[in-house]
Amino acid sequence: MKTYKYPTKEMWKKLIERPSEDFKNIISGIQPVLDAVKSDGDNAVCEFTLRFDNISINEFLVEEQLIADAEEEIPVKLKSAIDKAYENIWKFHKIQVQEEPVIETSPGVFCWRRNVAIEKVGLYIPGGTAPLFSTVLMLAIPARIAGCLQIIICTPCRKDGYIHPAILYTAYKCGVNTIFKVGGAQAIAAMAYGTQSIPKVDKIFGPGNQYVTAAKQKVAQDGVTIDMPAGPSELAVIADETCNPAFVAADLLSQAEHGTDSQVMLITMNEPVARSIEFELQSQLRNLPRYDITAKAVKNSKIIILQNIDEAMQFVNLYAPEHLILVVKDYKSLIPKIVNAGSVFLGNYSPESAGDYASGTNHTLPTNGFARSYSGVSVESFVKKITFQEINADGLKNIGPAIEEMAKHEGLDAHKNAVTIRTKNRIK
Amino acid sequence: MKTYKYPTKEMWKKLIERPSEDFKNIISGIQPVLDAVKSDGDNAVCEFTLRFDNISINEFLVEEQLIADAEEEIPVKLKSAIDKAYENIWKFHKIQVQEEPVIETSPGVFCWRRNVAIEKVGLYIPGGTAPLFSTVLMLAIPARIAGCLQIIICTPCRKDGYIHPAILYTAYKCGVNTIFKVGGAQAIAAMAYGTQSIPKVDKIFGPGNQYVTAAKQKVAQDGVTIDMPAGPSELAVIADETCNPAFVAADLLSQAEHGTDSQVMLITMNEPVARSIEFELQSQLRNLPRYDITAKAVKNSKIIILQNIDEAMQFVNLYAPEHLILVVKDYKSLIPKIVNAGSVFLGNYSPESAGDYASGTNHTLPTNGFARSYSGVSVESFVKKITFQEINADGLKNIGPAIEEMAKHEGLDAHKNAVTIRTKNRIK
Repeated sequence: MKTYKYPTKEMWKKLIERPSEDFKNIISGIQPVLDAVKSDGDNAVCEFTLRFDNISINEFLVEEQLIADAEEEIPVKLKSAIDKAYENIWKFHKIQVQEEPVIETSPGVFCWRRNVAIEKVGLYIPGGTAPLFSTVLMLAIPARIAGCLQIIICTPCRKDGYIHPAILYTAYKCGVNTIFKVGGAQAIAAMAYGTQSIPKVDKIFGPGNQYVTAAKQKVAQDGVTIDMPAGPSELAVIADETCNPAFVAADLLSQAEHGTDSQVMLITMNEPVARSIEFELQSQLRNLPRYDITAKAVKNSKIIILQNIDEAMQFVNLYAPEHLILVVKDYKSLIPKIVNAGSVFLGNYSPESAGDYASGTNHTLPTNGFARSYSGVSVESFVKKITFQEINADGLKNIGPAIEEMAKHEGLDAHKNAVTIRTKNRIK
Repeated sequence: MKTYKYPTKEMWKKLIERPSEDFKNIISGIQPVLDAVKSDGDNAVCEFTLRFDNISINEFLVEEQLIADAEEEIPVKLKSAIDKAYENIWKFHKIQVQEEPVIETSPGVFCWRRNVAIEKVGLYIPGGTAPLFSTVLMLAIPARIAGCLQIIICTPCRKDGYIHPAILYTAYKCGVNTIFKVGGAQAIAAMAYGTQSIPKVDKIFGPGNQYVTAAKQKVAQDGVTIDMPAGPSELAVIADETCNPAFVAADLLSQAEHGTDSQVMLITMNEPVARSIEFELQSQLRNLPRYDITAKAVKNSKIIILQNIDEAMQFVNLYAPEHLILVVKDYKSLIPKIVNAGSVFLGNYSPESAGDYASGTNHTLPTNGFARSYSGVSVESFVKKITFQEINADGLKNIGPAIEEMAKHEGLDAHKNAVTIRTKNRIK
């Protein structure tokens, strides 16, 4: 890890910079994929699956029986773990969208919002190096709580033509029975435009490699909504002498193992603490199966020594990390000072991996500085709020003059007339 | 208006099609504007303001005194109208973001979300043919309720170098004192990248012409968030024999006057009703000051005769209109059947223009079919919800095994270790 001691504010701007991801080349490469799926549907999806994944497939839909049977295929211990995580995630998400009262803004003018689930949603579940069944939980649970009518999953199949049973079981547990064995940019295109067998959806969710991410960006310009822009995963830790260095080291490594482009940052006001954490980190690193990836990410990661906790909070807010761990004295008093972060972990016993899997919070979070303006995925991501108004004749009499006056001054006479004609010709 | 009698479902797909907006040419035209503002800042903004708007200006910031004084410059009647609208919009929006409780998902595992305002927001207010002070209300009020720290407005000035006092007064009323006299793509670029005098913001809101819309689309790919993709305004009315044809005609015209590309659709199960509305519409149209624009939009608008109210609801949900007016028998029973719409107006005394100005609901709404997946602007648009978790040692003991098991099966051993190291080395 590179250490920066008391960097200047000018230097801060450099330190928070993410590696710029240039999607231009990738997008020009995937554009033909998107176009072909749009025009040729299933045939194009088959062709690209053969070309990119080296898998010959012509029936994408996973048989429902296979989904129902997956329960028997996975270890009992894993099934219990998924069930436990399911329970916590459901508990945390189920309170997220509440009905609001009807507001009588003026006498006779009644306004309200209604939560209506997005009808058709598509969840992309990566299956590359590992089956990300945890992401099924994080997307399918809020979709179900929202009440989406049609929930589909696209996920690449293994070389043997099957989907990992942990993904199938998790989908089954979440009540999602429509799973297509399609991955990559072609899966995103299929959900965006629809094919003979894969339905077009209103919104696409889920992480993926750079092709998937670029395809999501591209279809988002073409009338389909996506959950959020995606980038490499990030973690910032603020630690002081109250931290357990071995715990912090483990957290930094858990982030670093995601990929060589993972963003890992340790901020502390105490240099000996930094040194202890680094020592622990190097010793834990040696034993990791994903050593190569993790060691590279560690090399790019940063230790930043700052003067005091106020500076540390300022720095973190400027950085706007996806994940933020606070292991400092009196961390609760710092909560109101957190302005930009995706998900925050407090104290020595709240590892970031708890939020990734089983504490209940969502792990689909804003990266790349988008924590400044985006929230993580929640039930709200699967709902739109439609406004309603019911105005009675007296109500229109109350607010009519204001509408007429404002419309007149905005030069919109027909808007004004829509009120005038009603107040003049009141139905008895 | 063109009438379609009992169109087939195949035909429905054609009827709901929006005119495709090809931004490619516009984007290639504005790209140099965005690039120049990014690299040259204020100088570039000056240059483009002179070139496009023919206004020579080098101080963009409106003096605070001018903003405070605007109250005296506008008619008393207009001031009262704005004040009335302000009050209703504030009332409707102030309840929109509620704190959620802390959830103990498992014993010792505490999770919650905190509403945190987006720090810096930029509101674009068009000033072209008319000063859209109503949009100031619709954006600045939720921004203030959310608690955004920095709220700036960009709006083009008049030929005389001043901003219309109705815009200044409305901003003042809403507590926004940072107003820049800049419009067009250069204003969007300035807020996206920052210049010497105009700060970079985290999220850009507001409507605009096609250059503004294209610029927003473009900067959204460059790390800045925007409120929503924009398209021409839309209205669908479902009317039956309980409607007042003159009222419906006035509503259709109020939508049509927005622009020649406005989308206006009347759906009814009763042909004589359609004819009466059309008759009223033609007679009201003749007297409108914006006759030319409105007549063109009317020519492109559609009357669709369907078999029954169920079909009408299906059609409207497929269309997903920005605005929907229901003037049919027993309209309340139809509310649960509305799946895709931005804002809904119920009964004979709820004209769409009420929602545009003063009933309290927001008028920044999803167009172009985005009502399938987007909500209109609300306080939520100015807030992100940060998740927090605080797990104690017992809590981690409870959920630790699930995390370890899941991480292991996803091949992420460092994630597993972050739990194991804690459960094995519990601090006393």
